[in-house]
Amino acid sequence: MDRDVPLLIPEVNPEHLDLLAHQHSSRGWEQGFIVTNPNCTSIPMTMALAPLQARFGVEAVIATSMQAVSGAGYPGVPSLDAIDNIVPYVAESEEIKMNDEPNKMLGTSNGQQVKPAGITISAHCNRVPVSDGHLVTVSARFRNKPSLDDIVETWRTWQPVPQQLNLPTAPQPALVIRDEPNRPQPRLDRDAGGGMATSVGRLRPCEVLDVRFVCLAHNTIRGAAGGSVLNAELMYAQGMLDTFK
Amino acid sequence: MDRDVPLLIPEVNPEHLDLLAHQHSSRGWEQGFIVTNPNCTSIPMTMALAPLQARFGVEAVIATSMQAVSGAGYPGVPSLDAIDNIVPYVAESEEIKMNDEPNKMLGTSNGQQVKPAGITISAHCNRVPVSDGHLVTVSARFRNKPSLDDIVETWRTWQPVPQQLNLPTAPQPALVIRDEPNRPQPRLDRDAGGGMATSVGRLRPCEVLDVRFVCLAHNTIRGAAGGSVLNAELMYAQGMLDTFK
Amino acid sequence: MDRDVPLLIPEVNPEHLDLLAHQHSSRGWEQGFIVTNPNCTSIPMTMALAPLQARFGVEAVIATSMQAVSGAGYPGVPSLDAIDNIVPYVAESEEIKMNDEPNKMLGTSNGQQVKPAGITISAHCNRVPVSDGHLVTVSARFRNKPSLDDIVETWRTWQPVPQQLNLPTAPQPALVIRDEPNRPQPRLDRDAGGGMATSVGRLRPCEVLDVRFVCLAHNTIRGAAGGSVLNAELMYAQGMLDTFK
Amino acid sequence: MDRDVPLLIPEVNPEHLDLLAHQHSSRGWEQGFIVTNPNCTSIPMTMALAPLQARFGVEAVIATSMQAVSGAGYPGVPSLDAIDNIVPYVAESEEIKMNDEPNKMLGTSNGQQVKPAGITISAHCNRVPVSDGHLVTVSARFRNKPSLDDIVETWRTWQPVPQQLNLPTAPQPALVIRDEPNRPQPRLDRDAGGGMATSVGRLRPCEVLDVRFVCLAHNTIRGAAGGSVLNAELMYAQGMLDTFK
Repeated sequence: MDRDVPLLIPEVNPEHLDLLAHQHSSRGWEQGFIVTNPNCTSIPMTMALAPLQARFGVEAVIATSMQAVSGAGYPGVPSLDAIDNIVPYVAESEEIKMNDEPNKMLGTSNGQQVKPAGITISAHCNRVPVSDGHLVTVSARFRNKPSLDDIVETWRTWQPVPQQLNLPTAPQPALVIRDEPNRPQPRLDRDAGGGMATSVGRLRPCEVLDVRFVCLAHNTIRGAAGGSVLNAELMYAQGMLDTFK
Repeated sequence: MDRDVPLLIPEVNPEHLDLLAHQHSSRGWEQGFIVTNPNCTSIPMTMALAPLQARFGVEAVIATSMQAVSGAGYPGVPSLDAIDNIVPYVAESEEIKMNDEPNKMLGTSNGQQVKPAGITISAHCNRVPVSDGHLVTVSARFRNKPSLDDIVETWRTWQPVPQQLNLPTAPQPALVIRDEPNRPQPRLDRDAGGGMATSVGRLRPCEVLDVRFVCLAHNTIRGAAGGSVLNAELMYAQGMLDTFK
Repeated sequence: MDRDVPLLIPEVNPEHLDLLAHQHSSRGWEQGFIVTNPNCTSIPMTMALAPLQARFGVEAVIATSMQAVSGAGYPGVPSLDAIDNIVPYVAESEEIKMNDEPNKMLGTSNGQQVKPAGITISAHCNRVPVSDGHLVTVSARFRNKPSLDDIVETWRTWQPVPQQLNLPTAPQPALVIRDEPNRPQPRLDRDAGGGMATSVGRLRPCEVLDVRFVCLAHNTIRGAAGGSVLNAELMYAQGMLDTFK
Repeated sequence: MDRDVPLLIPEVNPEHLDLLAHQHSSRGWEQGFIVTNPNCTSIPMTMALAPLQARFGVEAVIATSMQAVSGAGYPGVPSLDAIDNIVPYVAESEEIKMNDEPNKMLGTSNGQQVKPAGITISAHCNRVPVSDGHLVTVSARFRNKPSLDDIVETWRTWQPVPQQLNLPTAPQPALVIRDEPNRPQPRLDRDAGGGMATSVGRLRPCEVLDVRFVCLAHNTIRGAAGGSVLNAELMYAQGMLDTFK
């Protein structure tokens, strides 16, 4: 979360890589750089909100995560916590990251630091007996009130940079929109786009905020190894691996 | 949901039994009456909100349920939906009941019908791989802003009618307050109070509304058989089983 | 189990297709034929025993299956039977098939019927909370006593007909031999060979019979759809789809 | 497994407590003694075999265990090993104990050491996604061939010492015989007799040995804490706590 370190989802904030020139000069480095991945739970929600933020302005979010046990690594979660059970707690910092990270990634870089997006995010994080795939229920309020059709249209036509560049591990599409009333589900949808796509579904009005929906991403593919590969592909495509070599 | 039929949780709205005299006369019945139980998912949230509603006035709630498979009866949920999976959908009407039922139970009876409480409730209902015990994450906004200590104090000192009457199956206390950061959990807490108590925990501020917490109740004991027994005990204690015999 | 109908695993008994000529003539059919797949639980054990039967003669087997819920189709097994539970029963006929089917497949065809292999097989069948992949523990007695090295060598060098013909869905190798003390496991090994391979492991002496081991195959890929495709590929490669067209 | 230390199941081998006098004198102890509990997986099988051994003589057993994760303590089994999975391995020594412990407990004490029962036992031990309750499938061969009715009758009329003495935590009966085709099951039967009883069921002929059946006991109640309490109750009832004080 250092000011000059991009927290990168290539589809969401590729322009934050402009921090690297400043990072380099201010730290007096001759080569190398630091780019980081967000927490695996921030990913599906940030992916779903990114195109909506650009067009409608997100004001507030209440989210409940149902996080797979592989998010804690191996050995990680004891099986006695996971069999026939839910643990309504992941880690001290988990719910804080669910606020800070999307705000940084959806914020604006001036080349030296990122101005956070100013979205108020309140998260309930839970560990569930699922091997892979973090599911998040989202209720959101917008500045410019979109209709449900506006949201679907925005999701459907979103063409982020990695998809435009047709990067090797960039899923096509970045967002898989499910119309069935009972999707996305971790076992059926976590491998969408080779585990790199985010699935969204169950879009409907929220009586308290504006809309609610459900989103899902594979936490160890998109959320870890695959995410890092896509970061590298983006930087390679933009010639940055040479620049900072 | 008929206007003259009490939807009863003995701790929450025992005074709604005053509808029975009207139900009797208006339907021209000589004996018998109808009292119903709420949906098993409404129970933990309504139990946790009831004493808060009385003192602070609940304005709005966003809730996400993680519901056990026994809520669907037997054979109910196919195991292929439950192993290594979450289904973000329970039934068409489930999320509607999560709004309508608490509003009716927390509303005011004039002896002929119940005026709903006027709380705006938005629910995300999910089926999770747990045998028994519905867990609900709750974010709530109040008219008279309580501190976290106010809420704990209100929960701790709540003495509903069945507990005052010391009814045989009334759990003592009605609400079990957990202080640990990772409780309540279905496998550890569903049997609190012989399966009749509601457990609450993880009380903390909500950045979007006012506070958030987690609540849990046993869906087949409190939510079905045991709930009906407690209804009968309340009516027997109040002499109503004779009145309407 | 009709006498003139091949129960086919292409790696195990491709020569049983010689029944089709007799099936055709004796039934007076001008075209078409019947070839069937075995029960999905018979497959991993029969695959593991087939090369051993050829060299050492299998006399007796005691097997315990731990069968995935997808073996029962959808909706199939109720989730209340599968969460935090084992059901030591699958179906009335399951344990009988575990004796009859391997004996037919490992038996000898004279072109008109199959003489069973004469192996005494006693099976305990269990349903376990696993989505896909049937695991079977096997204790076996042989006529010509093999060493453990003999068995590994026999498994490792087995080249069944589909693998020799390099059929499109034939896994290479047909048997995946695991050396780790804790493999095969359903979640890690069911997709071996695209879900078409059988994994064997934990080979060690049996104090009561001769040897014991564990085997595993994917019950819906190898055990159903994929198995049928491989049957067709074998018959196509042998020109039988023209012969019986 | 020291020669002068009783490995005690009060229903199975209470007479082995005669080792304590010798243990005391040969070790030169003035007070105290050592009595141990068997491995939790040995218990259900040894309980089921004990009355049969007395009347028919057990020669050989092939057993497959499906062991709950609580047997490994907390944190114990990683949830990634337990969700949607079976691990066909528990620990290096587990299958050895499944042979040695029942033989010691079913053996004969001469007051100085125990002569093992001489049963050949071959075990396959597996870890399954169950919280509590070890299930074991058993195939057994006897010296004096019993009918199935003989076995049921022997189980049903078994009156071990703790049950005769009516010890406080001794379950009545010690063995719960299930007649249903699909019992015992961990979730439904582990709490039989307050978690202290062993459930047996699915008794049927074994084509390879003589009979097969399924047995189940609660691994943390009967297999640990409760077992130790019953040991103490037996010794107290027999005045041994004074003798060796």
